[in-house]
Amino acid sequence: MAGIVECVPNFSEGRRKDVIDKIVHSIRSVPGIKVLDVESDPDHNRSVITFSGSKEAVAESAFRGARAAAELIDLNKHTGEHPRMGALDVLPFIPISGATMEDCVAIANKVGARIGKELRIPVYLYEAAARKPDRKNLENVRRGQFEGLRQAILADESRYPDYGPRMIHPTAGATAVGARMPLIAFNVNVRSTDVEIAKSIAKKIRASSGGMPAVKALGFSLEGRKMVQVSMNLTDYTITPISKVFEAIKKEADEKGVEIVESEIIGLIPIDAVCDLAAKFLMLGRFNSNQVLERRIWV
Amino acid sequence: MAGIVECVPNFSEGRRKDVIDKIVHSIRSVPGIKVLDVESDPDHNRSVITFSGSKEAVAESAFRGARAAAELIDLNKHTGEHPRMGALDVLPFIPISGATMEDCVAIANKVGARIGKELRIPVYLYEAAARKPDRKNLENVRRGQFEGLRQAILADESRYPDYGPRMIHPTAGATAVGARMPLIAFNVNVRSTDVEIAKSIAKKIRASSGGMPAVKALGFSLEGRKMVQVSMNLTDYTITPISKVFEAIKKEADEKGVEIVESEIIGLIPIDAVCDLAAKFLMLGRFNSNQVLERRIWV
Repeated sequence: MAGIVECVPNFSEGRRKDVIDKIVHSIRSVPGIKVLDVESDPDHNRSVITFSGSKEAVAESAFRGARAAAELIDLNKHTGEHPRMGALDVLPFIPISGATMEDCVAIANKVGARIGKELRIPVYLYEAAARKPDRKNLENVRRGQFEGLRQAILADESRYPDYGPRMIHPTAGATAVGARMPLIAFNVNVRSTDVEIAKSIAKKIRASSGGMPAVKALGFSLEGRKMVQVSMNLTDYTITPISKVFEAIKKEADEKGVEIVESEIIGLIPIDAVCDLAAKFLMLGRFNSNQVLERRIWV
Repeated sequence: MAGIVECVPNFSEGRRKDVIDKIVHSIRSVPGIKVLDVESDPDHNRSVITFSGSKEAVAESAFRGARAAAELIDLNKHTGEHPRMGALDVLPFIPISGATMEDCVAIANKVGARIGKELRIPVYLYEAAARKPDRKNLENVRRGQFEGLRQAILADESRYPDYGPRMIHPTAGATAVGARMPLIAFNVNVRSTDVEIAKSIAKKIRASSGGMPAVKALGFSLEGRKMVQVSMNLTDYTITPISKVFEAIKKEADEKGVEIVESEIIGLIPIDAVCDLAAKFLMLGRFNSNQVLERRIWV
């Protein structure tokens, strides 16, 4: 099986359906590309398109999407709640089956170079593709947004792009191109009416306050349900498996004398993460997703 | 997504490669059919072919396999260790994604009727497709094998076929056509040198001695590894989930003062069974295999 890569570009257009349709059409125009999801948010004035295919097809398709966005979107006329610096704002490549993070970093470089050269749009490599430590975090790359970056890219050496001209594109702005693992949105609900319990557990486990790497967590109260929620984004399940996160939360809850009611996976989860959980439950010595019956049929 | 059905016919030929190849070729001749596995055993003189496709494609493909076997295999010349009554000996249909057991029973009837009418081979419906309780068990259907059934089918009303002539086909014998769930081969290894512990746990959990339905289990010793094994076939994971089997074994092991070392899934496991285990581990309220990322990409 050839390697499959997922790509989740965010475009700065969430209102004009004809524009979004044209961008989707340009992405679909590459044979073998499967568009999995299109979500447009009018308040954010932003669309997130999810598609997948072989490494080569995804690279070509991503470039065509970038080109269509540069032709159709003028950021000078863009307003919306979500921060943005480009018509194609962010372009992450995500390894799925038979592809590695290194493959996705290579694709980010290949497509980033083309966007810089052929479209004359400055490109910043971010997350796993970042060449400078401060560019790992997208918020650093996007600081000042379209309007602020116009001056910063000229004056501030630390804002020079990785590819393309050292000036912002007059209508398409700048684009962040990167590579990252699939995100898993995972919530654990605890029986309590005290939101401080969820906040305290979240603080204990998240990377930013010294907990487990690749874990983002916040605590919320679930009004009217007599539960509080530890709401998480797991940014790399191969570094910190979900089972480890769950067990850490369980331990914290035990110590605080509260019980876990249930958990939720929001949206999608990679098959390898599901298989890892099954293997943990059953104490399986050797087990991997190649043993999933449907995988043989579908792939 | 159209419903996907798996089919695992067993043919009474495990030695002549050209014959096996021709049967595989006849199965592959239907568009959309994917042959997943071909295993031939010379001692058993038997081949097991695993293929999948839409309901319609699998029905046509299975019939073509039956026809090829009737043309190429003469049971009068067949010797081997495995009991058999037909050139195509057993033909089970198995529901996978978007197909139900009822769909598979319908396919068994459709293909069974064609084998009876067009090939003049008597057909017995077995397992979930059985119309008589004693035909649920394949061993009852196959009693006496090719040689014994020749007389029995004429003389014994209880051996009359469900489709086709009330006499055995002179060279192709008779065929059992059925529907069943995917099997899961699951072993649990326990730290002990006393095989009686594994045998006792197996007896406690298996359906045949009053344990859990859809569980077959035997106890073995694993020579030289200081472990004994509870070796299982789970014949319907929707009736008795693997998690329940594992927890029952764990409880028995605890009571006997022995510990589980590890488990094994031998071969393939349906994605829904894997998702169920992951959901149990995490106490997921709502979760199903549609949330598996790769499923969106592959299907």
